[in-house]
Amino acid sequence: MSTILVTGSSRGLGLELVKQMASQTSETLVIAAARRCSPALDEVIANAGGRVSFVPLDISDLVSITRSVQLVKSALDQRSLDILINCAGVHSETHGGVALMSDLEYQLSVNVLGAHNVIRSFLPLMEGGEVKKIINISTAYASMTRAAEVTYAPCPAYKISKAALNALTVQYAMSYQDQGYIFLAISPGWLRTDMGGTNADLTVEEGAKAVVNAVMSADKECNGRFQNIHVPGWKGYDGQDIPW
Amino acid sequence: MSTILVTGSSRGLGLELVKQMASQTSETLVIAAARRCSPALDEVIANAGGRVSFVPLDISDLVSITRSVQLVKSALDQRSLDILINCAGVHSETHGGVALMSDLEYQLSVNVLGAHNVIRSFLPLMEGGEVKKIINISTAYASMTRAAEVTYAPCPAYKISKAALNALTVQYAMSYQDQGYIFLAISPGWLRTDMGGTNADLTVEEGAKAVVNAVMSADKECNGRFQNIHVPGWKGYDGQDIPW
Repeated sequence: MSTILVTGSSRGLGLELVKQMASQTSETLVIAAARRCSPALDEVIANAGGRVSFVPLDISDLVSITRSVQLVKSALDQRSLDILINCAGVHSETHGGVALMSDLEYQLSVNVLGAHNVIRSFLPLMEGGEVKKIINISTAYASMTRAAEVTYAPCPAYKISKAALNALTVQYAMSYQDQGYIFLAISPGWLRTDMGGTNADLTVEEGAKAVVNAVMSADKECNGRFQNIHVPGWKGYDGQDIPW
Repeated sequence: MSTILVTGSSRGLGLELVKQMASQTSETLVIAAARRCSPALDEVIANAGGRVSFVPLDISDLVSITRSVQLVKSALDQRSLDILINCAGVHSETHGGVALMSDLEYQLSVNVLGAHNVIRSFLPLMEGGEVKKIINISTAYASMTRAAEVTYAPCPAYKISKAALNALTVQYAMSYQDQGYIFLAISPGWLRTDMGGTNADLTVEEGAKAVVNAVMSADKECNGRFQNIHVPGWKGYDGQDIPW
């Protein structure tokens, strides 16, 4: 039995990750966490034959996180949590110079502090497990090395917050590697979601499939890395490390 | 006449930067900003023959930043601000695993949001100038590439916040390069300050001298980079870019 928690699962990539994870084998329990359930998630749950449970979780609210830990613990029924996928996050734009950026505090608060609080709160449920993978959904926009290539995307606060999420991933990776944990930041590609828009490169199904492959094949060598998805036929999705 | 604003100047590196900047030529006005003046800064001001002015500034307080902009504007007396050195920052430690890190919000708030709010507030005073250099004092600890080499330093929140400061530097650099601005993150080395302790590599005078050299020689090629100081005889202080 494999147990997986996905945050931000009411729509977009998180929802599709839940769907695909639950259909991998019948021996899987996927806990879909989100602020609120959605009709789309309800449908996934209804079709999953008991392999998907919903848990309310607002990652920006410590009380909500604490409550969700208790609910996940009950759902796990003495089992450990194998995989935590931090997919919940926010995105917003700044038009004009970076001096006009007024959303940095908000983005750091959700995308970095929120992820930190989720990780630190769920680690005790993972301790006894054999898998111990924590995946932080990042973005290629977080790459400082390649910043000049993506200046067209008007989301500096998002880019900065995801660079900080990468740095958080690295700190956790160093801190817990001796206990067998694998912390990995993954860029899921540009997907046709509410966030990515309709001109994006990949369908959400293609992106989620590539993320699931990366999550499942991640081993100790991946700890503390920042990985691109691999989608055959796409030069920009080569499965290699993205430079910080 | 060269005009320079240094934040965090009541002690340590900031204080020494003020001292050395003021003694470069008589044609310099250094505005020393800090939450409170200190006896050491008072002494620097008394010996500077009018070339150093104090301005109160708490970078974590927007009202204080707004007031300081008015005071700096008055001190500049119609001149532009040439160089802004963001040296103010906080440092704290986490003992035990990164899950115990409770200072991340604080570090991000001061070291990243504080720097952003200072930069965005002072940019209008720099607009008409010829120099337009904004220096963010970072740290080699911010390097994700080299994180495994510095796991001995128990300050994950500080490392993450400075990685985010680097990402902020990059976003500003891309956004304002066409207007002639130079944004540069500098690692000042491990210095014998209150923060660095007595076992550090360099005296604060040596570190500040190397930072002043880097600031003065920074040109458009340096925009958006993360630079090590150069101290002859020290392999670790080679003046080269530090990998993100």
